[in-house]
Amino acid sequence: MGEFSRASEITPSGERSFGAVIPPGWDIVGNVNGGYLMAVAARAAAAVSGRPAPVTMTAHFLAPVAAGPVAVSAEVLKAGRRFSTVRAAVTAERPVLEALGTFGDGDRAYEGYERVDGGPPDLPEPDDCIEVLPTETFPPPFVGRVELRLHPENAVFGGPGWPRVSGWVRLRDGESIDEVALLMLADSFPPAVFFTDAPVGWVPTVELTVHVRRRPVPGWLRGVFTSHFITDGMLEEDGELWDESGRLVAQSRQLALVPR
Amino acid sequence: MGEFSRASEITPSGERSFGAVIPPGWDIVGNVNGGYLMAVAARAAAAVSGRPAPVTMTAHFLAPVAAGPVAVSAEVLKAGRRFSTVRAAVTAERPVLEALGTFGDGDRAYEGYERVDGGPPDLPEPDDCIEVLPTETFPPPFVGRVELRLHPENAVFGGPGWPRVSGWVRLRDGESIDEVALLMLADSFPPAVFFTDAPVGWVPTVELTVHVRRRPVPGWLRGVFTSHFITDGMLEEDGELWDESGRLVAQSRQLALVPR
Repeated sequence: MGEFSRASEITPSGERSFGAVIPPGWDIVGNVNGGYLMAVAARAAAAVSGRPAPVTMTAHFLAPVAAGPVAVSAEVLKAGRRFSTVRAAVTAERPVLEALGTFGDGDRAYEGYERVDGGPPDLPEPDDCIEVLPTETFPPPFVGRVELRLHPENAVFGGPGWPRVSGWVRLRDGESIDEVALLMLADSFPPAVFFTDAPVGWVPTVELTVHVRRRPVPGWLRGVFTSHFITDGMLEEDGELWDESGRLVAQSRQLALVPR
Repeated sequence: MGEFSRASEITPSGERSFGAVIPPGWDIVGNVNGGYLMAVAARAAAAVSGRPAPVTMTAHFLAPVAAGPVAVSAEVLKAGRRFSTVRAAVTAERPVLEALGTFGDGDRAYEGYERVDGGPPDLPEPDDCIEVLPTETFPPPFVGRVELRLHPENAVFGGPGWPRVSGWVRLRDGESIDEVALLMLADSFPPAVFFTDAPVGWVPTVELTVHVRRRPVPGWLRGVFTSHFITDGMLEEDGELWDESGRLVAQSRQLALVPR
């Protein structure tokens, strides 16, 4: 069992309730990473629905939480022929996360019409990229849980460019990446806006939605994240994750606040 | 009271439950439009939270529904200082829609950092665009509920272009557009993929998320909707709505199925 599987493990405590223990190191200055929390909620959603693979999942973040024990609940809202719609929640001393997801069986072996406008980001080889190593503050401990190599051209915090960051990512111990791990990896890059000169030091996520297209083949993922609209105290961040076969495996969008 | 306000009206039937009656004409070949249903759920979420303006709302569509009476329930999951997180559901004879949203007070009068990479789509004047008029099949009755004028360059169903559609939209009787109406208008254009030669005649929405940036100034909205990735039996459709002051008012993304 790999480190991420262990860290997102849930233990049944009732018909639709589970316990989980968030280990140290999945936090950003003390607050546990949102995508990781979403993956923990997804484990519960998968358990109650009997469908292991999120197709699309949305989480709203209600309060920050630190490492330690949490309660996770999940409830099937509709079980259909191909998909189940599931609600899931994470609670510590107060509600932490509320999620809504549609789950399926994973491997769909689809052979219908396809059309792709775009492709994976151009990146130097992983060894020629910038490895992001954790500190106690920033980069946060969380980046020690994934292996993250950023494109050198947009890896400068506070640099003059557009809000865009790209790079390679994988689970640190070579653990294979399932559909639930994609939820976490879709939130594993530092915010794109940090790589600009925008006077923004903290962008708390209100909502994160991840569409999962397919389970990746073994290896690295290529990720690219951009923000186009910083307006009215909010920004969106759009992400794409591509696997080593050159296929889109997940697409993400989040809405984050831009505190004044 | 304008037609959309009447059509999305809810009547309390309990502490957290409401009744609504979907009038004829909001359907696409018999199935009520998803964004319209989301707006009805949002009215209930706004009522229970006391916060009228969705900031971000996600709906999962569980089953199609026809015109007629529906039950709407809503529950505040967290009431914070600025926002409330709310769950809402629409039920007819079976569950129809489940939603999760973060609601606020609307007018935020934000004067902080802004940065916009892009702008409203270039469009000929509304009178020089193609008016979409409803039929009993396609274009569906629903387009009679909004005033929709498509850019002539990408208004050809089955045309050779990319999945992109743009145009003007407003409520049909000149009713002012509030944040809840934006949820519906974000789903008011025909699917972008219909304007290509893709062999796709039906794209049922699994999930729709709308970020609301601000209440529009009076007048037309400009909308643009694109799909970049048709893979694994799914596509995303991204949308932007801009108001007559040239500001982004809403951003949307949906995940839809591409049946074989």
